[in-house]
Amino acid sequence: MALGMYDIITKKKRKQELTSEEIKFFVDGVTAGTIPDYQTSALLMAILLNKMNERETYDLAMAMAYSGDMLDLSEINGVTVDKHSTGGVGDKTTLVVGPVVASAGAAFAKMSGRGLGHTGGTLDKLEAVPGFNINLSEKQFFELVKKNNIALTAQSGDLAPADKKLYALRDVTATIDDISLIASSIMSKKLASGAKVIVLDVKCGSGAFMKTEADAIKLAEAMIDIGRRGGRKMYALISDMNSPLGEYVGNRLEVYESVKTLLGQAPKDITESCMLLSALILKGAGLAGSIEEGLKLAESKIESGEALERFKTFITGQGGDISFLDDLEAYIGKTERVDVLSESEGYITSVNTEMIGMASLYLGGGRTNKEDDIDPYVGLKILKKPGDYVKKGEALATLYYTGSSDVNKARETVVSAYVTGESKPAVVKHFYGYIDESGYHEL
Amino acid sequence: MALGMYDIITKKKRKQELTSEEIKFFVDGVTAGTIPDYQTSALLMAILLNKMNERETYDLAMAMAYSGDMLDLSEINGVTVDKHSTGGVGDKTTLVVGPVVASAGAAFAKMSGRGLGHTGGTLDKLEAVPGFNINLSEKQFFELVKKNNIALTAQSGDLAPADKKLYALRDVTATIDDISLIASSIMSKKLASGAKVIVLDVKCGSGAFMKTEADAIKLAEAMIDIGRRGGRKMYALISDMNSPLGEYVGNRLEVYESVKTLLGQAPKDITESCMLLSALILKGAGLAGSIEEGLKLAESKIESGEALERFKTFITGQGGDISFLDDLEAYIGKTERVDVLSESEGYITSVNTEMIGMASLYLGGGRTNKEDDIDPYVGLKILKKPGDYVKKGEALATLYYTGSSDVNKARETVVSAYVTGESKPAVVKHFYGYIDESGYHEL
Repeated sequence: MALGMYDIITKKKRKQELTSEEIKFFVDGVTAGTIPDYQTSALLMAILLNKMNERETYDLAMAMAYSGDMLDLSEINGVTVDKHSTGGVGDKTTLVVGPVVASAGAAFAKMSGRGLGHTGGTLDKLEAVPGFNINLSEKQFFELVKKNNIALTAQSGDLAPADKKLYALRDVTATIDDISLIASSIMSKKLASGAKVIVLDVKCGSGAFMKTEADAIKLAEAMIDIGRRGGRKMYALISDMNSPLGEYVGNRLEVYESVKTLLGQAPKDITESCMLLSALILKGAGLAGSIEEGLKLAESKIESGEALERFKTFITGQGGDISFLDDLEAYIGKTERVDVLSESEGYITSVNTEMIGMASLYLGGGRTNKEDDIDPYVGLKILKKPGDYVKKGEALATLYYTGSSDVNKARETVVSAYVTGESKPAVVKHFYGYIDESGYHEL
Repeated sequence: MALGMYDIITKKKRKQELTSEEIKFFVDGVTAGTIPDYQTSALLMAILLNKMNERETYDLAMAMAYSGDMLDLSEINGVTVDKHSTGGVGDKTTLVVGPVVASAGAAFAKMSGRGLGHTGGTLDKLEAVPGFNINLSEKQFFELVKKNNIALTAQSGDLAPADKKLYALRDVTATIDDISLIASSIMSKKLASGAKVIVLDVKCGSGAFMKTEADAIKLAEAMIDIGRRGGRKMYALISDMNSPLGEYVGNRLEVYESVKTLLGQAPKDITESCMLLSALILKGAGLAGSIEEGLKLAESKIESGEALERFKTFITGQGGDISFLDDLEAYIGKTERVDVLSESEGYITSVNTEMIGMASLYLGGGRTNKEDDIDPYVGLKILKKPGDYVKKGEALATLYYTGSSDVNKARETVVSAYVTGESKPAVVKHFYGYIDESGYHEL
């Protein structure tokens, strides 16, 4: 066993291509615990520095997917669809896109991971809805998708367990930042989750893992290649993460903004983001002939109120109490509020989303350990965004805090997150483009 | 602690230079056992692929040297000298060079490691002399060097313990073959051993780690740079390892050939090798003004019999019985002998020394595990060397074997080790050149 692994490390060290059998041997050994961590981390570093090609990357994703349960969604009528965001601050699109595409006829079947880091993940946002159950059995999950065209559940422990082990090791050996390793990690879980159409929302900018549009496209293409080799229909949106998405950050606050989006009352960036992602899904599901048709269909589901109705069905289907919709302001009204004032004057050129996320963490809205409780009430409302002019003493953001929040630290962090300049920045983009069957299209 | 190591891995992953403090932190952590192996192996792979510069390599060697005892030889009168061979089959030069330079006035103070692999190391050869004690106390070691100008002892457990740990991990993570890592590993032990003059015998060819002259020079220069930064006088001989050195392989057989060399009765290659290494040491110790003077001085010590006398003093000083010198043929006469016959005809172009070493192992003359016993009697006499013409059925080598030897396997291996061709090979070189203060000199 050890000899085989030694030879695999040696090949990758010499920039040679690993065979499918070698990659399977490695992943099976990691899953079974027969390969020592020191050999695994040596191989991961060799992969990071000497790269894998598309075939190797696909094989790694598939081997990790097959290391645990593979969900078979074939008994579901209609096209099963899924979306994945590479992570962003204020990203609540799943809560909008799911109901929109479900109401248009797609079967939105999504398994979501727990958010670890400055802000909560989708599961945390849904848990901010009283009574909502994120731990569905497989049977419940299937029944809800069949009945409502939408269900969302926490990933079971046996979804791509090899990825879980490898990620934990990458996290402590500085081997996270490789496109093949990132793409295969994400896609192993998507492949195991079973949906036929997968739409990726790949972020770029100061607050994202990929800093530039070019890098975000590379990551998207790597994931798309894996999915297509695995027989899935793949699309990707390349979105900006040089300021938070929408106005609100924090779990209740983001549920609030999701409902506002479904009501057609949300800011342009979050609305457009949800519509584009929905359009890509609808095209993939064969419910729209083009992106333009998809956009129209998605928008019609908002205007007609069908998307909001489907949101209610979704929430009640998983045990949630929708009475908060009757008084949305009360739903977010429990905390104290204080404005963060600008200490400088000028045009805002960027808002560091990672720091906004940290501010939310200081208020109590994120986790530093897996076991941490999240306060669903705290968070921020972003009042000023790139392109806006701000005067000294003018409010940049509003903090929603409680007695346990570290307000001073949050305030300082928000102030530092804002970068101002003397001249108005050029066009502020929310999206760079999307990838479909015919390639990359700039937006 | 983990954070520091993460940052160090990240820097090297990005091809950045590590500071002396970072390298010391790493080595101290490895020594103390506070850095997990998976982080160490990730860093080793990053070092192997992204390289270290000379300063980093020196810092690594020094940090590993200081991870254990640093021998202070300053109380010894005269210039302390040491030699190191990168390993070769049939290499018994230490047993000749030590007495030669000691008889000429240098203080030969050498700590040697246990041989692991196809053939025994210097310690195994000396243990083939009845009664010889290779485990001297520090006090005994110092006293013998002071009294006889020569002593040789096994490395204590606390000589560069960080190197021992790192080497064990490199061995299972395919991170052996990096010049900086090899050079710092060897030099950490040489620096800790304390001698002021260090002469390296760097082998190249089919049976050596470095396959080409250019690579051997690179490794030599890396080790020389470390030693000089550490205040040592450094020289290196670049020797050929495309056939075994001398005629004999095996522990008693190599002691036999060493004595033959001291008697002036050995083949040209082993004699010249010993004379060149001695000359470099004598120049470094200030006992000869040039290599030519050093060669003359060394040769005179053979001719006068002083070197052989010093060999006897050396052996008896460490408890050995020199009565074997009275009947050298009886000393190697206990085994059965059988010739290995050539299966082809032509000019010998090369003799794979690694395979000759394997043949010796099959006869019982080497170790596969640290605990294995070595049979000091078994081995081979090489009858044909590159440049010789051989007919089918003519003897290539003589096997010295006992009832426990696997003679058939040894025979087959020897046959396979010989490569013949139709035309006589160009000049067969035993040495390529040497490095002194003024650079590389071809021989």
